[in-house]
Amino acid sequence: MAENALHIIPLGGATEIGRNITAYHLGEQILVVDCGLMFPDQEMLGVDIVIPDASFLIENRAQVAGICLTHGHEDHIGALPYVLPHVPAPIYTTELTLGLVREKLKEYGLWASTEAIQVADGERVQIGDFNVEFVHVCHSIPGACSLVIRTPTGTVVHTSDFKFDQNPEDGKLTDVSALARAGDEGVLALVVDSTNVDKPGYVLSEATVREALDQVFLEASGRIIVTSFASNINRIQQVIDISQRYNRRVALAGRSMQENVRIARELGYLHVGEDTLIRLDQIEGYSPSEITIITTGSQGEPLSALTRMAMGDHRHVRIQEGDTVVFSATPIPGNEDLILRTINHLFKQGANVIDPRMHPPIHVSGHANREELKMMLNLTRPAFVVPVHGEYRHKELWRRMAGEMNYLAIHLENGDTLQVTPEEAVITEHVTAGAVFVDGSGMSGLEDAVLRDRWHLSQDGIVVVVCTVDHATGRLIAGPDVVARGAILTPELDKVTEEARRRTQEIIEALPEDGTVDWATVRTDVRRAINKLLQQTTGRRPMVVPILMEI
Amino acid sequence: MAENALHIIPLGGATEIGRNITAYHLGEQILVVDCGLMFPDQEMLGVDIVIPDASFLIENRAQVAGICLTHGHEDHIGALPYVLPHVPAPIYTTELTLGLVREKLKEYGLWASTEAIQVADGERVQIGDFNVEFVHVCHSIPGACSLVIRTPTGTVVHTSDFKFDQNPEDGKLTDVSALARAGDEGVLALVVDSTNVDKPGYVLSEATVREALDQVFLEASGRIIVTSFASNINRIQQVIDISQRYNRRVALAGRSMQENVRIARELGYLHVGEDTLIRLDQIEGYSPSEITIITTGSQGEPLSALTRMAMGDHRHVRIQEGDTVVFSATPIPGNEDLILRTINHLFKQGANVIDPRMHPPIHVSGHANREELKMMLNLTRPAFVVPVHGEYRHKELWRRMAGEMNYLAIHLENGDTLQVTPEEAVITEHVTAGAVFVDGSGMSGLEDAVLRDRWHLSQDGIVVVVCTVDHATGRLIAGPDVVARGAILTPELDKVTEEARRRTQEIIEALPEDGTVDWATVRTDVRRAINKLLQQTTGRRPMVVPILMEI
Repeated sequence: MAENALHIIPLGGATEIGRNITAYHLGEQILVVDCGLMFPDQEMLGVDIVIPDASFLIENRAQVAGICLTHGHEDHIGALPYVLPHVPAPIYTTELTLGLVREKLKEYGLWASTEAIQVADGERVQIGDFNVEFVHVCHSIPGACSLVIRTPTGTVVHTSDFKFDQNPEDGKLTDVSALARAGDEGVLALVVDSTNVDKPGYVLSEATVREALDQVFLEASGRIIVTSFASNINRIQQVIDISQRYNRRVALAGRSMQENVRIARELGYLHVGEDTLIRLDQIEGYSPSEITIITTGSQGEPLSALTRMAMGDHRHVRIQEGDTVVFSATPIPGNEDLILRTINHLFKQGANVIDPRMHPPIHVSGHANREELKMMLNLTRPAFVVPVHGEYRHKELWRRMAGEMNYLAIHLENGDTLQVTPEEAVITEHVTAGAVFVDGSGMSGLEDAVLRDRWHLSQDGIVVVVCTVDHATGRLIAGPDVVARGAILTPELDKVTEEARRRTQEIIEALPEDGTVDWATVRTDVRRAINKLLQQTTGRRPMVVPILMEI
Repeated sequence: MAENALHIIPLGGATEIGRNITAYHLGEQILVVDCGLMFPDQEMLGVDIVIPDASFLIENRAQVAGICLTHGHEDHIGALPYVLPHVPAPIYTTELTLGLVREKLKEYGLWASTEAIQVADGERVQIGDFNVEFVHVCHSIPGACSLVIRTPTGTVVHTSDFKFDQNPEDGKLTDVSALARAGDEGVLALVVDSTNVDKPGYVLSEATVREALDQVFLEASGRIIVTSFASNINRIQQVIDISQRYNRRVALAGRSMQENVRIARELGYLHVGEDTLIRLDQIEGYSPSEITIITTGSQGEPLSALTRMAMGDHRHVRIQEGDTVVFSATPIPGNEDLILRTINHLFKQGANVIDPRMHPPIHVSGHANREELKMMLNLTRPAFVVPVHGEYRHKELWRRMAGEMNYLAIHLENGDTLQVTPEEAVITEHVTAGAVFVDGSGMSGLEDAVLRDRWHLSQDGIVVVVCTVDHATGRLIAGPDVVARGAILTPELDKVTEEARRRTQEIIEALPEDGTVDWATVRTDVRRAINKLLQQTTGRRPMVVPILMEI
């Protein structure tokens, strides 16, 4: 390692890089930015959450000077309970993010042992050799920041999630002058969001969402049920404001919605009139035109409040004729099916449903589109661009866009160590990084082998063949028994299992009785024979597990 | 049943109704329209295809006068090999559809025994008491028809899939005058597509796609690889025409693409210059700017030609720097993840990727949008509207749209028998209908129990506990052995299985040795004990299967 070089190391995520956790390494010091989790995709069967592999930080824990958090979304703070116990460093972040982190760490019993430093917008803090300026940016949660990280080697602008909304709900604009100032001083590297690099133009302002929501309220005569991410405090503020204008009370459904609203109110990020909020069990005391419900479930999550309402399964809320349900959130790829299923059920219960595809401005993204990304590039004018928060296609589109503007962008994978000096940026090594699948109570990672087994089981089921044999003579003492799960259909079941039994018996009975049997080979023979049988009779390849018990 | 009433019975599909197969029942005669299949969704684990439950037709096979096919898409003809053997009725359809059906039935050895009648556009055929007029409509395959079904009781217009393209690729417009004529005579029921009832306005013309494709060809200097549905003959024609204009040869990848092009050419639905088509193994003989490849895989299907190319796994085609890959098809909900994964890999191999979301007019839908559906309604002016081809939300949106235009639309579920007379339309009974899951070679349906097992296995895996016991004394002879698959992570595996063994042993050893053991209860006890252990130690609930072998 070059002595005075800065190293940029994206550590988190599975297919995406660096959204969840990034390390800056300079000399003997490490600055960590964000510590988030990911949600499993369809192929991660039975996986609850995905956390970044923090081995690199754990190995170098003595060097970690601090953890800066850019905003309060789960994909930026959600892995703290898993990482902090192994990497006990002070946390630096702004007020609302700190409020959300505090709740989370309290839940895990980690708050008391955590050193947390609250930073104001625009403030600069010295963390070891890193001087970090917290620059306010617009995003889909208040209190979001980009970081200007000044080091003896040079300055990095770490944008994290941002957009340039000219008319944000809370009136707090992205601090363009702070970014421009960094650009004027000279920026070595721009570590930049790439979520919407495939979307042309600019993201519409949150103000347009307000107009669209207002129109919905104007037209609806029954209850209005709005679903959004629980962290989208500004959207929640919009819905509350408009509800008040139309003399509607507001009830909150879903634990995370209630929690986030409570924290945001306590910290002054959400303003609600004295009598506006009511409990869900109070809504029956009002006429439908006096009620707004804000609920979790915008992604069709099976256990969420909205999905329960749609299934007629919610304790307090039954969907009724005249309800208007507003989906004010973008479907995350892979969730479309679940969302459409929820919408079908809502229609069945008599609701009208307004989703972002039908009325575009009912929701806008929290991430900058292409022209905004270019604006960030023009403000900061970095020597090197490092696109993060994206899959391969995002990074590649960023690289091409930057190239057209005569900037050099560099593709990193998780774990790649980018060594940056004013002269050059080169990948010098690769550290352990990537995704750890968390499953059940186990904090240990779920291995690929287990996921492969689950995939195989999910497609074709399993057939277990059991026999008890005499170890000395190879004689069959009990069985073969055949048990199938998810593998063979009822009409064929008896015939196929009987035949499986017969073939296994044949193999065992053909063995020499002189004690020279190699049981591992027998197991393989049985597996092969049963595989072949199942392939012939059912056209399928279930997992075949032979168990030979020797006595 | 009212003697002279007409009965409309949608029979096919899982969540959608009537896309795949619809029966018209009048007196002692049944007319069948279409006979298609569906593709499984994410939760149908290991299911290969989904066919409509044809029990109603099989039970009443003697009454089936004929099967009319509206067009050659799989969701309208794909279940013929499964239904025809049980319901041997004559098939009526137009030339290209018949060509595609012939290939399919030949493959299954059913062609020789099938009576097939070719019908010309605009022709009327008498099928029992049903007089059926085949009315040409625009769709994403040539030779598509709506049916005007005239009966003694009244007339039904069965639209099937359609749109009103004013500038279709093959110049053949939707036959508005035939539809208007039916409207002038009087229409009892309009059985109508609802796929795009949630999309405002009109579908853009195929001509706009031609312009967008032309632009891509103008700009690309390397090979161009276009992926679309193999049945989208008009799109294929567009790509071939433009390729010829830019002096590119065209190679076809994917079996269904090659087959469909062959059939369409033989029947004169696709026109290709003498030297244009080359084989895939010939492309190396040309420079990249002289090559177009048209390929299957627009949905990211893992075994498709395009996905193999993206994975560097295709026999003849390796993606190279400078390739432009054009996705000219709409992602089917649920396929987005697979498609995006393919796009990542294409970028990684050096290709540029153009997908319909980035350049909207690179693909247009084959299904009418809202204003076109209204036009169909205004042309036919039916007494009753029956929206089909949709899930609940589609039918409900249709009902509301029709209501605003003072028409009455009726919600049907699969199997609902709608009795229609000029006076009224009422649901009189419900016949067996819905979806049959086909899995492997079995033609029998896949039971819910098997799917539930697969779901359970996919989430938590399986733990099998095996012992050999003495039937008479209850004494443990061999085992317990514990085998886990997809259930327990390596770090815990030894400890957990050892403990499972110990607890099972405890249960068996506590049994009375007097031959009074109830082995079913023992099995339950073992299952409970192991469930509890796994829940405590792993936080998971794998499927637990105890096997007690008695000797």
